[in-house]
Amino acid sequence: MSPLVLLDYASVLIFALTGALVASRAQLDVVGFAFLACLTAVGGGTTRDLLLDRHPVFWIAQPTYLAIACAAALLVFFTAHRLESRAKAILWLDAAALSVAVAAGSSIAKDEGAAWGVVLVMGVMTGCLGGLMRDVVANEVPLLLKQGEPYATCALCGALALLVAGWLGLPPFSAALVCAGVTFALRASALAFGWGIPVYKSRPPRA
Amino acid sequence: MSPLVLLDYASVLIFALTGALVASRAQLDVVGFAFLACLTAVGGGTTRDLLLDRHPVFWIAQPTYLAIACAAALLVFFTAHRLESRAKAILWLDAAALSVAVAAGSSIAKDEGAAWGVVLVMGVMTGCLGGLMRDVVANEVPLLLKQGEPYATCALCGALALLVAGWLGLPPFSAALVCAGVTFALRASALAFGWGIPVYKSRPPRA
Amino acid sequence: MSPLVLLDYASVLIFALTGALVASRAQLDVVGFAFLACLTAVGGGTTRDLLLDRHPVFWIAQPTYLAIACAAALLVFFTAHRLESRAKAILWLDAAALSVAVAAGSSIAKDEGAAWGVVLVMGVMTGCLGGLMRDVVANEVPLLLKQGEPYATCALCGALALLVAGWLGLPPFSAALVCAGVTFALRASALAFGWGIPVYKSRPPRA
Repeated sequence: MSPLVLLDYASVLIFALTGALVASRAQLDVVGFAFLACLTAVGGGTTRDLLLDRHPVFWIAQPTYLAIACAAALLVFFTAHRLESRAKAILWLDAAALSVAVAAGSSIAKDEGAAWGVVLVMGVMTGCLGGLMRDVVANEVPLLLKQGEPYATCALCGALALLVAGWLGLPPFSAALVCAGVTFALRASALAFGWGIPVYKSRPPRA
Repeated sequence: MSPLVLLDYASVLIFALTGALVASRAQLDVVGFAFLACLTAVGGGTTRDLLLDRHPVFWIAQPTYLAIACAAALLVFFTAHRLESRAKAILWLDAAALSVAVAAGSSIAKDEGAAWGVVLVMGVMTGCLGGLMRDVVANEVPLLLKQGEPYATCALCGALALLVAGWLGLPPFSAALVCAGVTFALRASALAFGWGIPVYKSRPPRA
Repeated sequence: MSPLVLLDYASVLIFALTGALVASRAQLDVVGFAFLACLTAVGGGTTRDLLLDRHPVFWIAQPTYLAIACAAALLVFFTAHRLESRAKAILWLDAAALSVAVAAGSSIAKDEGAAWGVVLVMGVMTGCLGGLMRDVVANEVPLLLKQGEPYATCALCGALALLVAGWLGLPPFSAALVCAGVTFALRASALAFGWGIPVYKSRPPRA
């Protein structure tokens, strides 16, 4: 088993936890928890596999992924009431899942020999799509679209770091760790210190 | 023609009717009816085919499916005003479509030799995704996410029934019928008697 | 390079502009602009390629597309405040992008030897899906679903025109131009003169 596979496992687990927490805010039943957990957990990676024509899709080849997502859903179903703030837990778990998923997505695209622009896009997409699907389906404002809060930007910087690490000669798994580290550091700083980045502000049209 | 293909035809027809009924609530024009009918009708099955790498996708191989969905859209366009309650018609037709689509999705995944976990997921997904796309695009609250109303749960029980029927030695088409029957019986009971299942209720955090 | 490829380039550029303009209404940061621009630009064509099993997907084979979309996002990020009405600019650019994308989608499906029903659907889908994804993700009312405003209808007429042009013996690129012309003429007339088409109106149930 390639060590890169570990990244897919970790991102599936953490994304599934965020999906189940969002399900708990929508007060679904236990199968609803599992559905949203699985969708969030495998959404980004599935899109990546379809786009790169990697078959069978990772969770069809290895259904353990789904078992992990369902276990995470069950865990949250029985313990979420113990959390002081589910909104906060979602934000921080999502940051962790984002980081790992960006690393998984961009590493695999690089492994398949994709052009560097495609590596960046696959990284950002694998990272962002699972959470985006979760939020669109559950009718929450996507984290991706919160004003002035860097999200896709963190993912992009992480994917860039992976490319730079690769150019510097780091082996794939170390490069993936660098990528996850950079993404998480940026996103966590944004959450902890309220770091923002310049956003578009419309100015009045000239007279 | 395999008898399993009949399930695809039936689910396309019934899902197209629900899509067109939702279009009538959004007061679209006739092409809008056809668009939403086709999206709902083939959405779940298309995702299944892409994930299982079955090409050509069923409605590209056999465009009759689209003709059926468009005919259903036309029928609804000219007759929906005769219904006493479109909301009720949507609920019941959706229950029927869900049942048939779960049977179609899980049978085909089983036929392709997928692991049992994947058969369950494909069944639930083929059943739920068409309606989910319809509701997300038309900006309605997804049936899947209505609190305390079993939806994905019915689909899951149906797919489980298919597996059990297979283990008991039933031929594929009979197993598919058992699956559709179980799904519909559960969903219909939920609609008719207001059956609910335990949902997640947040309790106040401990002091 | 086949001249049909030019259509893909043009539709990517124009759709990216609309995606970035929608991002400016949501006041995202510059990476958010790029994300929404890329999603809108390649959403329809990617779905077309996945459904027709054309690999590598067009923007993976040729990452220039993403560069174009990102350049468009940057351009809008720095100049959108100069527009008098962004809503109007989105509507008209979307009309242009729709026309070109319908031509690209239906030409390529025809080129692959798809049945005429599939050519129509691929044309409408390639045209409508990018904008639909943009609007669903950005939480705007999809242009596709505005009451009484023809949208999918224009796309369908354009795709029909392509088929007719092909039957009359026109070469593929000319047929594509006819298709884009018809689609744009219809959509522009609808926008300029407020042309509507008959929509579904519910009548009271009979007593």
